[in-house]
Amino acid sequence: EHGTSNSGGESSKESSRSSTPVLAADRTERLRDKMRRRTESGDHWFSLEFFPPRTASGAVNLVSRFDRMGSGGPLFIDITWHPAGDPGSDKETSSMMIASTAVNYCGLESILHLTCCNQTKEKITGYLSKAKHLGLKNIMALRGDPVGADWEEEEGGFNYATDLVKHIRCEFDDYFDICVAGYPTGHPEADSYDEDLRHLKEKVDAGADFIITQLFFRADTFLKFVRDCRAIGITCPILPGIFPIQGYQSLRQLVKLSKLEVPEEIMRVIEPIKDNDAAIRNYGIEQTVGMCRVLLESGNVPGLHFYTLNREVATMEVLRQLGLWIEDPRRPLPWAVSAHPKRKVEDVRPIFWASRPKSYIYRTQDWDDFPNGRWGNSSSPAFGELNDYYLFYLKSKSSKDALLKMWGEELTSEQSVYEVFTSYIKAQPNCAGHKVMCLPWNDEPLAPETNLMMDELDKVNRRGVLTINSQPTINGKPSDDPIVGWGPPGGYVFQKAYLEFFTSSENVTVLLKVLKKYEPRVNYHIVNVHGQNTTNAHDMQPNAVTWGIFPGREIVQPTVVDPVSFMYWKDEAFALWIEQWAELYDDESPSRMIIKYIHDNYFLVNLVDNDFPLDNCLWQVIDDMFELLDNPPEEQPTEQPVEQPAEESPVEDQSPK
Amino acid sequence: EHGTSNSGGESSKESSRSSTPVLAADRTERLRDKMRRRTESGDHWFSLEFFPPRTASGAVNLVSRFDRMGSGGPLFIDITWHPAGDPGSDKETSSMMIASTAVNYCGLESILHLTCCNQTKEKITGYLSKAKHLGLKNIMALRGDPVGADWEEEEGGFNYATDLVKHIRCEFDDYFDICVAGYPTGHPEADSYDEDLRHLKEKVDAGADFIITQLFFRADTFLKFVRDCRAIGITCPILPGIFPIQGYQSLRQLVKLSKLEVPEEIMRVIEPIKDNDAAIRNYGIEQTVGMCRVLLESGNVPGLHFYTLNREVATMEVLRQLGLWIEDPRRPLPWAVSAHPKRKVEDVRPIFWASRPKSYIYRTQDWDDFPNGRWGNSSSPAFGELNDYYLFYLKSKSSKDALLKMWGEELTSEQSVYEVFTSYIKAQPNCAGHKVMCLPWNDEPLAPETNLMMDELDKVNRRGVLTINSQPTINGKPSDDPIVGWGPPGGYVFQKAYLEFFTSSENVTVLLKVLKKYEPRVNYHIVNVHGQNTTNAHDMQPNAVTWGIFPGREIVQPTVVDPVSFMYWKDEAFALWIEQWAELYDDESPSRMIIKYIHDNYFLVNLVDNDFPLDNCLWQVIDDMFELLDNPPEEQPTEQPVEQPAEESPVEDQSPK
Repeated sequence: EHGTSNSGGESSKESSRSSTPVLAADRTERLRDKMRRRTESGDHWFSLEFFPPRTASGAVNLVSRFDRMGSGGPLFIDITWHPAGDPGSDKETSSMMIASTAVNYCGLESILHLTCCNQTKEKITGYLSKAKHLGLKNIMALRGDPVGADWEEEEGGFNYATDLVKHIRCEFDDYFDICVAGYPTGHPEADSYDEDLRHLKEKVDAGADFIITQLFFRADTFLKFVRDCRAIGITCPILPGIFPIQGYQSLRQLVKLSKLEVPEEIMRVIEPIKDNDAAIRNYGIEQTVGMCRVLLESGNVPGLHFYTLNREVATMEVLRQLGLWIEDPRRPLPWAVSAHPKRKVEDVRPIFWASRPKSYIYRTQDWDDFPNGRWGNSSSPAFGELNDYYLFYLKSKSSKDALLKMWGEELTSEQSVYEVFTSYIKAQPNCAGHKVMCLPWNDEPLAPETNLMMDELDKVNRRGVLTINSQPTINGKPSDDPIVGWGPPGGYVFQKAYLEFFTSSENVTVLLKVLKKYEPRVNYHIVNVHGQNTTNAHDMQPNAVTWGIFPGREIVQPTVVDPVSFMYWKDEAFALWIEQWAELYDDESPSRMIIKYIHDNYFLVNLVDNDFPLDNCLWQVIDDMFELLDNPPEEQPTEQPVEQPAEESPVEDQSPK
Repeated sequence: EHGTSNSGGESSKESSRSSTPVLAADRTERLRDKMRRRTESGDHWFSLEFFPPRTASGAVNLVSRFDRMGSGGPLFIDITWHPAGDPGSDKETSSMMIASTAVNYCGLESILHLTCCNQTKEKITGYLSKAKHLGLKNIMALRGDPVGADWEEEEGGFNYATDLVKHIRCEFDDYFDICVAGYPTGHPEADSYDEDLRHLKEKVDAGADFIITQLFFRADTFLKFVRDCRAIGITCPILPGIFPIQGYQSLRQLVKLSKLEVPEEIMRVIEPIKDNDAAIRNYGIEQTVGMCRVLLESGNVPGLHFYTLNREVATMEVLRQLGLWIEDPRRPLPWAVSAHPKRKVEDVRPIFWASRPKSYIYRTQDWDDFPNGRWGNSSSPAFGELNDYYLFYLKSKSSKDALLKMWGEELTSEQSVYEVFTSYIKAQPNCAGHKVMCLPWNDEPLAPETNLMMDELDKVNRRGVLTINSQPTINGKPSDDPIVGWGPPGGYVFQKAYLEFFTSSENVTVLLKVLKKYEPRVNYHIVNVHGQNTTNAHDMQPNAVTWGIFPGREIVQPTVVDPVSFMYWKDEAFALWIEQWAELYDDESPSRMIIKYIHDNYFLVNLVDNDFPLDNCLWQVIDDMFELLDNPPEEQPTEQPVEQPAEESPVEDQSPK
């Protein structure tokens, strides 16, 4: 990309404006352009198909699967449309919601399937409008299965996928990228293979951008189909639909539905091992890898589309063997980027939601502008409420039972809460022998960079400095550093040390005395659930705590400590004590009372060490606090009343609401 | 400022948006608020009065004086209004233009005087509208001297300054800060001292924000005046007008105009030394310092206002002796900030105009928005033309004669041009024995940080790499570093090395070969006067080359290399060869032809070393170029035609116009 000669003319004057410096072009490109660019570069890709789950907990698990399978670098995923499952609704299991979650919360380029038969134009337009509003940019236009044997063509209605393609182009112009289905052996209802090809050409001529085929079992089937398509003038990309055989029953069911014949050479292998799931899966992987190799080597296949059946193992193994599964540790930004088109310029976020990015995305979904370059410029005044305690993609993946085992069946004191935090930090079993894998503020194990500070974290949590977020000082590490790196190669990344924790009001009183010694090196915000707030933030300005310097770019500062957002975050952070932890226990139980006491009386504290070229001083701050707690200065005899904590921590009621 | 408890409530949510992180509050405060803040802090200040010059070269000199006297830290300057001198016109000597230049180009808070007698309301409103449009925020409202002995009050007209104050408040609401004149011994035309005080109270009640007094010779005179003002309810700031006696004639003239009496104790000293200018000036300084000390120690004087008579020495000496002249080496940004209210958020500029900031301000004066935080966000699409070759504040302070002595009465070759550059870099005499103090692109001696690279600059200029702009690598120096520091204390500043020069097309051909070895470490732009342009800038994005990290702030990146602005800058940079240098010589003279040849054939090159933690590699790039020029690789015998320079430097016509 470097080394090219660029124009300095009028048009490039425009194009240099309002660009986002670090983010790769593929963040703003539409799917068909990404596809063209990858095809032209000869760079093979893959994509993944999922169907919507039946239950809410199935949805939570599918979203985790998106995160895991997203890390292998699919060009896109697609979500099937289940007319019987209320697919366009706001239910957590609807096709619409699952696709929206993939785009907005998992940052995946996604295609939503849509079937049109037995639907009114108004209904279809409503679905498409909703999809557009949710940030979906791609539609797989399908006819769907007619309901009832007596179904007949309807004049002016949606009789074929072609009608849907035309409708989308008519109502939404070029907004959506449109995919259509191809049938390498002909559609089962078509009069002939040739007639079916003509139907496909009609769909493409009506405005479809590319084709994904039905599954097939022999590479030749697909390659002939592509030749036949090209022969009648279909020039768009044609992606083979790959189905790794994963079990005898699922194969039989699929074949029945799709009216395909399984080739004899495959049945000959499978029949004898039909009760051995592992053997069948291994065969499926081997057979699929072999077929994919032929396809890719043909030169006529730019990418492979996988029917995953919502499973991970077989598809990932095939992709690994093909060398297409690329877990790229490089991150464009230190946090995962949303794929919503409105958020494409977003490159600054407050640090508070680092472990709850989906909550941050949810609470800012109504913003019209996202911070680009500077947080202070954001025109977005407020955070939405976090309602529906909690949205399905924010629900813990652990059951109540598992949570009780990790966080304590019965708490006896604040100290037993401290021990839960310590066990989480150390990734060690608690006193009942259960590993603590998550906390209300962290649904995942500790980040690798947090491990760099494990000893210090362990030490302070033991004494009731209950850490929920932290980052070490980084003074110019290469941008490709495997632990702390992000952004394009050849750059340098920096961090100011950050520490965020809950602690008692007694500790806070002493901490405020200690912090006077660290002015102006350390910035702090200290707030309790009632909004009593103490800070030394200058003019309430945001403090950039993560930034990067790259060749030929403007500075990027993706994470800030923003005093204003902190007041919104504290509501969420305190609420998690009650909603996720206290409510595990019976009303009036001592365990519940202990968590409630912490919620009502502890303060949430954040500290930034501004002096990033020096060693992180925040541990010293906490040590000084412990030291002063352990060895309080002797009071001089005096007739004045004993010093009140209130004098040391001037507070005001400053709840954001 | 740190350590205070701030509100996290609704209003501060608003106030934290769209703020400029590094710039001090006094950049956005209005004059009366600055004055109140300084008064409350007990921090004495000074201000300076100037009158408009009579000639264009006088205007050039006065603007230089503004720059010099601005460095001592005046709270404001004021420019008198000369009704006979076409004061509201666009002439370079008008009161309006001088005040506008002080605000926009010298970054000085300024007050424009305005007199109203014998003027129509329409005329006055026109002056005020023009002042507002030019970014002036403060008016000194005066009656002025009636013209003709038969002047009479006019019903509904401007008879007194009070009428003007009312008119300003009526037509412009609270937009302007208004100052009025006070007469410590009573206005010469007033019936009595008491009546004059009542008039002053009327002016304040009509909306004046503060008072500056006529000059006086005894501290008691002023202090009594303040007491009398307070007694009748005048509560606004009252600034003493200080007149350091600088000569016998100027004293007599002033006394005659102001109808003041010089106290006997002063006349007794002066009369005997009236022909000894130096002695009178020394006495004036001593007398003024003594009086100012009494004033400041009274506790009733927050700041001192000096009638400078457009001279520097006496006022600066008085201020130095009083400890009020504070040359603060700390800079809010690496470049001088304009005082125009519209530019108050500006904190990013292209590096190209570093030595011609007034030209940059002029060419962007019509922008509605200025870059804040990121250059890419600028909504300002284009640079204005640099017309009127050249504006008075861009004119060289040197005469044609002086320029010829510095740049050569007669040039004999390109080499003699190289020698002029070398003499400038080394601040040494040229072959004719004259020191080269400026170049067309640099009207000032080299910046201290450029001195850090003097040996390298000297070496490359000798060989025709004619440098016009450069900065060294800085990897995290403290923000209070005396040479490269800027911004608030406790921060760290960084730079990428930058080098900009003219050089021959032969050199450029070889340079492009060398630069291939430095991909992607070095970004380059190479362009000739015709707009033939070669660059490796990624997507034409700007490259931040100066940035700073500060406690509790967002990142600031005040200087960028922007490919788009470079195309505007190159027009200006090439034009300076002709307009400032070639035109010194006769048409068709060899000297003129040599400059013209360079203008027509040389390329303007800029280089950025992105790897700021390493040693600057740009000198090595130039060395490699010389090395390759001196020892070209032997050509392999071949039947192909000899390699053309064009193949090594793919170029297109890309003039921005």
